Amino acid sequence: MATIKDVAALAGVSLGTASRVLSGSSQTSPDSRARVTAAAEQLNYIANGPARSLRRSRTDVLGLLVSDIRNPFFSELAHAAEREAQRRGYTVLLANADEDAAQEAAYLRTFASQRIDGLLIAPQGSDLTQLRSMRDSGLPLVFVDRSVDGIDVPTISTDNDEGVRSALTWLHGRGHREVAFVGGPPAVSTGSERRTAFLRIRDELGLSADPRLIAHGDFRTESGVEAMRAVLASGARPTAVLSADGLMTLGVGRALREESARQLGVVEIVSFDDLDWFSLVSPPISAVRNDATAIGRLGVAALVDVIEGRPAASHRVATSFVDRSAEAAAGAGA
Amino acid sequence: MATIKDVAALAGVSLGTASRVLSGSSQTSPDSRARVTAAAEQLNYIANGPARSLRRSRTDVLGLLVSDIRNPFFSELAHAAEREAQRRGYTVLLANADEDAAQEAAYLRTFASQRIDGLLIAPQGSDLTQLRSMRDSGLPLVFVDRSVDGIDVPTISTDNDEGVRSALTWLHGRGHREVAFVGGPPAVSTGSERRTAFLRIRDELGLSADPRLIAHGDFRTESGVEAMRAVLASGARPTAVLSADGLMTLGVGRALREESARQLGVVEIVSFDDLDWFSLVSPPISAVRNDATAIGRLGVAALVDVIEGRPAASHRVATSFVDRSAEAAAGAGA
Repeated sequence: MATIKDVAALAGVSLGTASRVLSGSSQTSPDSRARVTAAAEQLNYIANGPARSLRRSRTDVLGLLVSDIRNPFFSELAHAAEREAQRRGYTVLLANADEDAAQEAAYLRTFASQRIDGLLIAPQGSDLTQLRSMRDSGLPLVFVDRSVDGIDVPTISTDNDEGVRSALTWLHGRGHREVAFVGGPPAVSTGSERRTAFLRIRDELGLSADPRLIAHGDFRTESGVEAMRAVLASGARPTAVLSADGLMTLGVGRALREESARQLGVVEIVSFDDLDWFSLVSPPISAVRNDATAIGRLGVAALVDVIEGRPAASHRVATSFVDRSAEAAAGAGA
Repeated sequence: MATIKDVAALAGVSLGTASRVLSGSSQTSPDSRARVTAAAEQLNYIANGPARSLRRSRTDVLGLLVSDIRNPFFSELAHAAEREAQRRGYTVLLANADEDAAQEAAYLRTFASQRIDGLLIAPQGSDLTQLRSMRDSGLPLVFVDRSVDGIDVPTISTDNDEGVRSALTWLHGRGHREVAFVGGPPAVSTGSERRTAFLRIRDELGLSADPRLIAHGDFRTESGVEAMRAVLASGARPTAVLSADGLMTLGVGRALREESARQLGVVEIVSFDDLDWFSLVSPPISAVRNDATAIGRLGVAALVDVIEGRPAASHRVATSFVDRSAEAAAGAGA
C-alpha cells in the first residue's frame, strides 16, 4: 500500500507539505494541494493509513455509501440502517455514489478522512484497489445489496435468483411466453445475478429466447424508458416485461404509455423492487418485494459485530412476490 | 492572525454587526456588508474566527441534514446539493432527521463532532438551543426548504404561497368549491405557510369554509391515509383535495382507493410536490412543482459563500403548476 512518503515523492513536495494537505490543513498553497491530491489519487493512498486505526478513538458514527439516494430501494435501506444503528447507539452518515465509480471513489476518500467506526457500502464494482486499501487499513467494512469479486467482507444481499424465479413463474402461469427483460448493468453484481437468473429460468420454463426481448439499463428511470423503447422498436412483441429495479420500472411504464395509452394495460409489467405507488397505477403493478429494510438492518448488525470484534456472516435475504392481479380486476372501473 | 474584533474595528462597525455579516445574516445593511467584507479581506480574516481555524482545518466536506430521506423531495434536494458541491470541489455527507426532533438533535451532535466545513439543514423547528449554539460556534449554517423563527441564517425555500395559489386557482377554474386540505405539521415552517396560504386563498376564491374539509398529517404517507380517511368520515363531501406534500398525496390516493375504487377518479387530487409516477396513475395527478433541485443547488451555493467569507442572501424559489388534465382525457381508455 502507498505510504505518505510515496505521495510526497510523486507530488514533488516535502513530507510535511504532503501531510498538511492530506490532513486538510489550510496552511497549504493551491498548487501543492492540487499536486498532492492528484498523487494520492494516482497511488490510491488512503488518508492516514494503518496508523489511523491505531490512533482512532471510537465515535459511534457509521458511514453508509449507497448507489443512488433517489432510488427508493436505497432510501428505504438507508432509513432501516439508521434505525438499527440508533437502536445500537450509533448514528449514520450517508453518501451517494450516484451510480458512478468516480463519485464512489471520492466518497471513499471523504469517509477515510472522517471519524467513522466502520463503513457499509453498496459497491459499484469497479474500484477494487481503493476498497482493498480501506479494508487493509483496518476500517470495518460490510457490503450491502451488492458485492465485488475478490474482496471478501460480510455481505448482506438479496436472493436475486429466487426473486427472478418468482416473477417468471408467475408470468408463465398467466400464460405469458414472450417476456421482455429490462436488466441492470452487468458490471454490478445485482445486474449480473438478475440477468443470469433470467436467462436460466426463462429456458427452464420454455419462455421465448428471442434476443430482441432483452435490453439493459443502469438501474435509473431514463435508462428504463430507453431500454423498453429499444425492445418495442426491435420488432419483438412482448406480452409482459420484467424490469430489474423499481426506477427502471417507472421508465418502462413511461415508455409503454408514450407508445400508446393502451400499451400500459396490454404489456403486463412485473418489477424487481416493489414501490409504494404500484397499487395506484391502472392496472396495478405486481412486484418482487426486495427487502431493503431487512438488508439495511442486517447490514448494520453485521458492521457493528465487526466493529465490536464479533464474527459476522454473509446473508442472502429472502424475497416475496406481491401479486396485484386481483386489485387490477377490482379497480377496473376506476 | 486577525480576529473578528480587528475586522469590526477596521470596518467601523460593532462586533455584533461584524459577526452577523460574517455569518451570512440577512439582518445587515448593504453598507455594513461591504465594509465588513472589505475589512475581512484586507486583514486576511479566516471566516468564522480564530477559534475555528485552530480547532478545525478545512476538509471540503459539507453536512446536509434532511427531514426525511424517504421523501422524494428531499432525496432530489440531496442529489442536487451533491452535484453542486462537487462542481465547487466539496463532497456532502447526508443525515436523516426522519421528521423527528430528537433524531435531528442527535445528528447535530454527530456533525459537530465530525470534520465538516458547514451545514445545510431543513430544520424540524423545535430545537433552537442547539442550532443557536452551532451557529454561535462559528459553523457556517444555511437553511433549506424550512426555517425557524429566531435563527437568522441564509434560507433557501419554496414560494409556498404561490404554489398553493396556483393549485387552488386551477381547482376553482375546474368548478371545484368543496376542496379538502391535507396539511403538514403546523410546527414546521412549510406546514404552517401552506396552511395559512390555503385558508387565505380559499376565502379569496370563495371556496367552502367547512372546517371538516381540513386535516393535518406529518408529511409522511401513513398520515396522508389517516387525514383523508378523517375528512371522508367527517361527513364533508369534497370534490377535490390539495395535499401539502408528495408522500401524503400517496396516502390520500390510498385512502380514496380503499374507500371505493371509484373515489380515486371522483375526488380530484392535486399535490404540493410533483412526483415521478403521477403521470402513470389513472387519472394522472396534477401538481405544484416544488423545485427541490434549485433549492439544493442554491443552498450549497449560499453555504459555500458563507464558508468562503462572501455574503449570502436568502431566496424564495418559484414553483410551477403541472396540469395533467389533458393526459387524463387521453389516457381514459387505458
